[in-house]
Amino acid sequence: MPHISLPPDLPGIRGPMAFRPETAKPLNELVDVLLRGPHTLSPGERELIATYVSSQNSCRYCQTIHGAVAAHHLGHDETLVLNVTRDVEHASISEKLKALLTIAGKTAVSGKNVTAADVARARDLGATDLEIHDTVLIAAVFCMCNRYVDGLATWAPDDPGFYRERAALVAEHGYAVSAVTPSTSNR
Amino acid sequence: MPHISLPPDLPGIRGPMAFRPETAKPLNELVDVLLRGPHTLSPGERELIATYVSSQNSCRYCQTIHGAVAAHHLGHDETLVLNVTRDVEHASISEKLKALLTIAGKTAVSGKNVTAADVARARDLGATDLEIHDTVLIAAVFCMCNRYVDGLATWAPDDPGFYRERAALVAEHGYAVSAVTPSTSNR
Repeated sequence: MPHISLPPDLPGIRGPMAFRPETAKPLNELVDVLLRGPHTLSPGERELIATYVSSQNSCRYCQTIHGAVAAHHLGHDETLVLNVTRDVEHASISEKLKALLTIAGKTAVSGKNVTAADVARARDLGATDLEIHDTVLIAAVFCMCNRYVDGLATWAPDDPGFYRERAALVAEHGYAVSAVTPSTSNR
Repeated sequence: MPHISLPPDLPGIRGPMAFRPETAKPLNELVDVLLRGPHTLSPGERELIATYVSSQNSCRYCQTIHGAVAAHHLGHDETLVLNVTRDVEHASISEKLKALLTIAGKTAVSGKNVTAADVARARDLGATDLEIHDTVLIAAVFCMCNRYVDGLATWAPDDPGFYRERAALVAEHGYAVSAVTPSTSNR
C-alpha cells in the first residue's frame, strides 16, 4: 500500500504525478526531452539506458515500463532488453552503447565513480560530449524516478500486457501527453 | 577537470545546464516548484532537506550552495545547517522536520528503505501527505542533481563567499532566473 493517499487506479510514478501535477509537468518535460528529443542516440538506445539504471536500482515499475518502451522501439525485441539488464558486455548492442551503459551504471552508484578512463573509452568508440552528458543525466534522472516510485511505496501491475500496451501509447505520444491519457485498461 | 567541454567560468550544475539548456529549463522549473513554491514547509526547511541529502551523497557543490541558501532563509544560521548535516536528531529543528529528514536520508540510499513506521512517525508529528510526498521527491531530485554534478566531474569554488553571494541571488530570484543571471564575481 502506498505511504500516502494516491489515486488507486494509477500504478508506479503515475499515482504521485496525479497527486502533484505541479511537479509532474517539469518531470514529464525533462523525460520527454531526454528520451524522445532529437538525438544521435535512438529512442530505443536511450530507453535502454533508463531501463538498465532502473534495473540496477531494482525498481520494478520503472525497469518494466521503460524496458517495454525500449523493446517497442527495438523491433519488439524483449530478449535483447533482458540481456542488457543481465550482462551489458555480452548483449547484442554497439560497443559505444556498452561504454555509455557502463558510465550510466557507475553514475547510478555515485557520480564520483565515473572515471576519465570510462569517458575516454566511450569517446574512442565515437561517443560525443552530448551523448556522454545525456547518458549521465538519464542515469541521474532515473535514480530520481526510482526513488520517487519506491520511496512512496507505489504499486506495479503484474500483467506484462499492461506494460506492452502502455509502451505503445508512450512511444506514440510521449510521456507528457500519456500522463493525462488513460490506457484502454484504465491503468 | 570536467569529463566534457563545459563553460569554464560556471561551477557545479551551472556548467552542464549552460551546455544543455533544453534539459536545464525543466530541471530549474522542478527545483523552483519544490523548494520555492507555496508550501506548509518553509523554503529554509525544504533547502535543509536538499542540503542533508547532498551531504549524505558527499556532493560538495550541491551541499554547499543549498546549505548557503538554507542558511540565508534561516536567519543566516550557518551553524544550524552544519549541525543538521552532522546529527539530525540533536539539531535545533522541529521534531516533524527530524522525521522528514529521516525519510529523506533513507530515500537517498534507496526508496525501498522508507518504512511505514518512518512515515507514521512523521504523520504523528503533524506531517501531511503533501509534506511527505515532497520530502521524498526533494530527496530523489537531489540524488539526481548530485549524480549529474559529480558524474561529469564539474568543479566547485573553495571560497565560502561565493556560495553566500550566490545564495542571496537565488533566494531573491529563484533558480530558473538565477541560472541566466551571473553573480557579480561572474562565477
